[in-house]
Order: sequence, then C-alpha cells, then structure tokens
Amino acid sequence: MAEFLQLAYLSQALRIWLEATRPLPRAEPEEIPTQAALGRILAEDVRATGDLPPFRRSTVDGYAVIAADTFGASASLPAYLHLSGEIVMGVAAVLDLQAGSAALIHTGGMLPARADAVVMLEDTQPVGEAEIEVLRPVQVGANVLQQGEDVRQGEVALRAGSPLRPQEIGGLMALGIERVKCRGRVRVGLLSSGDEVVPAMQEPAPGQVRDVNEGTLRALIELAGGQATSYGIVPDDPDRLEEAMRQAVAENELVIVTAGSSVSTRDATAEVIRRLGPPGMLVHGLHVKPGKPTILAVAGQVPVLGLPGNPVSALIVAHCLAVPMIQAMLGVKRSMIAPTVPARLSENVPSEAGREDFVPVALEPGSNGMQAVPVPGRSNLIFTLTRADGFLRIPPDVTGLQAGARVQVHSFPGGLAWPAPIGGDA
Amino acid sequence: MAEFLQLAYLSQALRIWLEATRPLPRAEPEEIPTQAALGRILAEDVRATGDLPPFRRSTVDGYAVIAADTFGASASLPAYLHLSGEIVMGVAAVLDLQAGSAALIHTGGMLPARADAVVMLEDTQPVGEAEIEVLRPVQVGANVLQQGEDVRQGEVALRAGSPLRPQEIGGLMALGIERVKCRGRVRVGLLSSGDEVVPAMQEPAPGQVRDVNEGTLRALIELAGGQATSYGIVPDDPDRLEEAMRQAVAENELVIVTAGSSVSTRDATAEVIRRLGPPGMLVHGLHVKPGKPTILAVAGQVPVLGLPGNPVSALIVAHCLAVPMIQAMLGVKRSMIAPTVPARLSENVPSEAGREDFVPVALEPGSNGMQAVPVPGRSNLIFTLTRADGFLRIPPDVTGLQAGARVQVHSFPGGLAWPAPIGGDA
Repeated sequence: MAEFLQLAYLSQALRIWLEATRPLPRAEPEEIPTQAALGRILAEDVRATGDLPPFRRSTVDGYAVIAADTFGASASLPAYLHLSGEIVMGVAAVLDLQAGSAALIHTGGMLPARADAVVMLEDTQPVGEAEIEVLRPVQVGANVLQQGEDVRQGEVALRAGSPLRPQEIGGLMALGIERVKCRGRVRVGLLSSGDEVVPAMQEPAPGQVRDVNEGTLRALIELAGGQATSYGIVPDDPDRLEEAMRQAVAENELVIVTAGSSVSTRDATAEVIRRLGPPGMLVHGLHVKPGKPTILAVAGQVPVLGLPGNPVSALIVAHCLAVPMIQAMLGVKRSMIAPTVPARLSENVPSEAGREDFVPVALEPGSNGMQAVPVPGRSNLIFTLTRADGFLRIPPDVTGLQAGARVQVHSFPGGLAWPAPIGGDA
Repeated sequence: MAEFLQLAYLSQALRIWLEATRPLPRAEPEEIPTQAALGRILAEDVRATGDLPPFRRSTVDGYAVIAADTFGASASLPAYLHLSGEIVMGVAAVLDLQAGSAALIHTGGMLPARADAVVMLEDTQPVGEAEIEVLRPVQVGANVLQQGEDVRQGEVALRAGSPLRPQEIGGLMALGIERVKCRGRVRVGLLSSGDEVVPAMQEPAPGQVRDVNEGTLRALIELAGGQATSYGIVPDDPDRLEEAMRQAVAENELVIVTAGSSVSTRDATAEVIRRLGPPGMLVHGLHVKPGKPTILAVAGQVPVLGLPGNPVSALIVAHCLAVPMIQAMLGVKRSMIAPTVPARLSENVPSEAGREDFVPVALEPGSNGMQAVPVPGRSNLIFTLTRADGFLRIPPDVTGLQAGARVQVHSFPGGLAWPAPIGGDA
C-alpha cells in the first residue's frame, strides 16, 4: 500500500513518488546517428569496436628507440644510436628497428616494431647524418601511448545510462560507431484545466487568459529529456477531465495536469486523479512556497503530477519533481548534482518556519562577489521569472535569511552551455 | 595594432581575442516559431502585444467588494454586504457591483466594474442566500492582480539578447506571440590537420587514427549556440591548409583549426594562420595545462582558434575560449556565470606555479559532502573525459592542492537540465 501524505516536504514527496513508480527505463530505445545524439541517454553499454589507439603512438617529437640502448646515457656520456630513418605519419611503420638504432618520430606517429620508448628531441643531438647522441636515458614505455590505452577492443567504453555529452560523442566517433541505441524521450502528457484558460494561439475574449504553462512546461520537459504531447485545455467538468486524463495516462509515461487555480477546480482535479485507480494519490499538498497545492499520484504505472496553475509555482515545482522523475525514467547514470552560483543576498528575505521557500533571484556582480537580488513579483506573474537568473531554496528549519547571507543560487535551465571559468575559483 | 602575447593566461587571452574581434551580434536574425525557439537568443526587443493580465483578476477564492464597504469590519462587528451574484469563469464580468454589495469570485476570475478588492472566503460568513458577513476589512487592491501588472501593452517584455528559457517561451505564449526573431546560430568552420587523421566514418589504415575532435567540437559548438561546418582533414601541406582556411574564414563567423600534434605540423598551422592577414595572430601559446599550444588570431573580422590535437586539450580550451566567443557573438545578455558543485578533493593534485591547470574529476558522494576524484589519464585519451563529471581549475599562483581541499567543480555541459535541489543548501 502506497504511503499517503497530506502535506509533504519536497524531498519526502519525491521519494514517495519515485518509490511508488519504481521508474524503469521503459521507453523503447531508438537507434540514432551518433552526431545527432547529443544530450540523449545511452540505452545499452557500448563496447569498443577496436583498440584505441589502434597502435602504439609517440606522445612527443623525438626518436623511437629500444629503451635498453639508452641506459646510463648522460650529457657527458651520451649513448650513440644509428639513425635508421623517419616514421612517416599516416602510414604503417614498416621500418624494423635494430638494436643500437633510432628512428625519427613525430607526435602521434606509429612506433616501429621492437621500439619500446621515445626519446624527446630536446634530449638528443644529431651527429652527422646517420647518428644521434642520446643525452638522457628513457624507460620502457616512456613517451608512448600503448595500443588500447584509451580503450581496449571489447571493453565497455560507455555504460548504458550515460548522457551523451561532447566527449561521449567524440569517443564514439573515435571508435567509428556511427549509430547508437538511445533511450526514447520520455512521453509526457500535458493537460490544463480551467474555464478561463484558452490556448496561447487563440485570442482571449474578456474574462479569458492565454495558457502560459503549456509552453513553459513543454520547454522544461524537453530540457529534461522528455517530449510533451498536449491534451489541451479541459473545461471544469470532472467527467471530461477524467476522460482526457485517462487518455493521457494510456498514451504517456508521465502525465502533468495544471489545475485551474480556484479551490473548486483544484478539488475537482484531485477528485479526478483519485478516480484514476491505484496506487492513486500519494501526496496532496506540499510545505512549499510557491507550490503548496501540488498533487503527486500514480495511476497504474504512470506517475501523475498535479500542478498549481500559477506559472511560477508550476515551473518551480515541475523543475523540482518532474525533471528528476523524467531522468529516473531515462535511467540517467551520471551524477546529476545541480551546480550552483555562490552569492550574497542583497536584502532580507522572510520565510515561514516549517515551509521550504523558493525565491527567484537575479545575479548581479557586487563589490564582494556576486549578489543575489530577489526578483519582486507574485507567483501569478510569468515575467517575474524572465527577470530571474535562478532561485534560492530556504529550508524549512530557517525563518528567513538576512541581507549579506551567503546563498547558493540554482540556475534556471535554458539549453545553452555555460562558459567555462577563466579566472576566479580554486 | 593588436596586442601580441607569446604565452598568455587564459583570461588575458580571451580578453585580447574579444577586444580584437569586437564581436557583434552579426548573424542574420531568423524568425522562428516560439515553440521551437528554446535555447535561442532574441534578436530584438519584444514588446507586449497587450496588457497581461488583460483584466483585473482575483488571486483568491472569495468575494469581490468595494473596499470602503469593509472598513472597520471585525468578527464581533462584521460588515453586511448584499450578495449580488457569482462571477462566472471565462466570460466577461457583466455584473455591475453596487455599493454595499459583493459578488462571489473564484481565483483567476475577472473583477466586476467598481469592485476594487477581494475578501477571502475564510474571512466571510454567509447569512442566508443573499447576504454575507465580512469579518475583516480589506484595502483597495487586496487580493487583486491589476490589469497589466505582469506586463503592460507596448512595454518591452523581453530584451534583445535574452536566451529563451522555459519561462521566456511561456511569457511569449502568454502574449500570443507565435513567432520571434532570434539570432542565427553562429557559423563555425572546423578544420583538422594531420596526415595521420582520417574522418571518423572511414576505416583507418595502419598508422592512421580517426578524427575525435570534429565530433567533440561540433557538439560543444551546438551547446554554445553555434553550428559547425566541417572543412575536413587537411594534409600537412601549408598551401592546401591555407586554401582551406581562407575558404572557412570567408564562409564563417568563427574558425577553429585543430592542429596535428607534432611540432612541425603545429608550426605549419601557425604559419598559415599568420598568412591570413591582419590583425593576425594575437596569442601563441597559453600558460595552461592541458592546452599550451593554443593559437588565437583574427583574420579580418573572423576570430580564428588554433587548438592542440589532443582531445582533452581541444575540448577544455574550446570550452574556455570558443564558448564565450560564440556567446559574445550572439549578444547573450543574461548573466552566464558558470555554476559549480562545491566538493572536497580526494587526493593531492600537483600543479606548477605560473600555470593554470584544468583537472578532470568525477564527483562521488562522500561522508563529508561531495568528493572530487581526479580522473587519471593523459590528455591524449578521449575516454578520460567520459569518466569525468567536470573539472577543477587550479589558478597560476597555486602550486598544487591538498587532499581534502575545498574546490569548485565545473560541470561539463551535456544538454540536459540539472534537476533542482530538493534538500541540502541554504
């Protein structure tokens, strides 16, 4: 029997929801071209199709040698080696190195047979055309990249669940793997309810407003690794809402319903979610501002998230709950720890004890590092969020933060890479 | 005359390169559907097409009233108001509120004419069918979202240069703006040189290796807001390289050439970059590990980046230099401060004084918060980076870090949203 909580903290709510869902990577894997797979999640382990590098390579410009021939060499007592030729880049090293001889080699060049080390150019001196002095000894393997040192044929090069970042794409290309099996995007059904809400592309009549949340949530879901299908705006009629929700549950792996904001509409939405069957409603209400009237449920295998209609609440709660659910369903294996920007708070921020608060802030450079400036505006206003770079979390056991307090700002996701640091931190 | 530095720190190098380029948003704007514009950059200010909200809305369930009618009301001495009807959601409030009367209203409902506040349901009590008691006074504007409070008609709702995140997409939808002018993606020409390098899709012969960097850099450029065109792998022939580079400079806004790794190839690449004309080469070499043999130049208006062939160096230097250049060219206005994950170092990491070090690390939960575990492997090995979650920067004035040191880990970008925090920080 699933746990039920009338009012939960966010971490409790997420745990209960994930446990009741046991999210498995369930989407059918798709095979896609490696170059188009950026940001996707590997559906199965990828084994190396060959050794990488495929042959022993020099890591420096110098001379390929037999290391033993250089033992004891020094500037005052160099080792003399016969220069037997040059390793040409991009073709097999056919030269057969004899004891007491060396071959000129470039960085990335293929070591000839019998050579087992490379002496750096700066540790040598030419003696005429056909001989070199080696001024320092090298050990076996010095300045050599061994065959298969990067990855060996047959070895698991990338694990199922790995997000494909630029380096994974490069690694796959280096192995000549042109297509990879990735998890399908998690199918997310989106519904809105509320008699006053009309689709964004429709001209609202007096008393009507355009749907904000459909666009916001669709974009967030895409960034999380999902794909949204809209089931439109359902009028405040429990039977019609139930019909639409049942269809969404049948056709998706996750369903998000944005309730109209009035109490009666929210109650109707909760009642419809209850009707969808076991395990049913798990959490009704969060100790969170904004986002108190959130509902978490599971219908059969499909997690259902009921969001408040306020755009700020809807986006922040979806970020906190729908994003991790989607990533659990994708089986994302890499550590997905939210990075933060450390900053100092510009002003006092009140907060009630026993409640988690999420406060949208703008980041501004200050004399003492970054400043986090709370963005004024109610949770009914979408443009509040367009002025914010990120948000603070105030834990339930804290009653407000003082101006000057050190805080960690969580960036809102946007789909653009952050530039790397070019100064500053340790 | 542009400044020239033989060996520069990263921050100097970037500054000189940006100054010599004066990167302007120069790509032709494209008009694209709002729903497809996630992660793009606005090319021009967007003005509100109407007031948002388009009418005064209640933020609670309650009664629309004339505030003055409630003055002095209390539980012991309530104000009695005539109940003149209910505001129906989604249609114009036609009801004309008389002094001394109230109308039932739902959250999001349209305030009737003359009403100037809403009393919350819990602060009232019904008296029969046609009357209510108001137990607390409300001020003018209480529980009301004013028309245009989110954004006013004609006001700049979003500035040129704003990255379109989920909230901006939602804001545009809320205004009914179906198409937006976005900056075109920055066109980046990619070239590789090196006789041993073959395209990833080609089976390498003995002595040859597949191109890693094309895939890695193409993906990184995409995450940064660019679009890469490959000019293929140019043999180690300065005239052919010059021809290919001139074509790439003519056809792109940024050119990145990955030099073969041997000194002679690197020298040839540098020589070709010099021939491309003024302002010419600005930086030849960085005090950075990995990434020392980096070249920064500008040919006419086009910045040129010469990267080392080692995949780790190429990715890290491109992240530090190409990503901010692309974002400067896009005119990205939002604060793009790289967020980090605070961690403790698992082991000593040596570093030379006078050099910036970038150390790939994996993040592992430890008893004392996150641990940053350096990933072993040379900069020749692409799979080193696939095991890393991010990297540390060790500034030039630091000679190594001790095990247990507090560090800031920069995540490698991957195109997936980070889940929001659900516990932990303040």
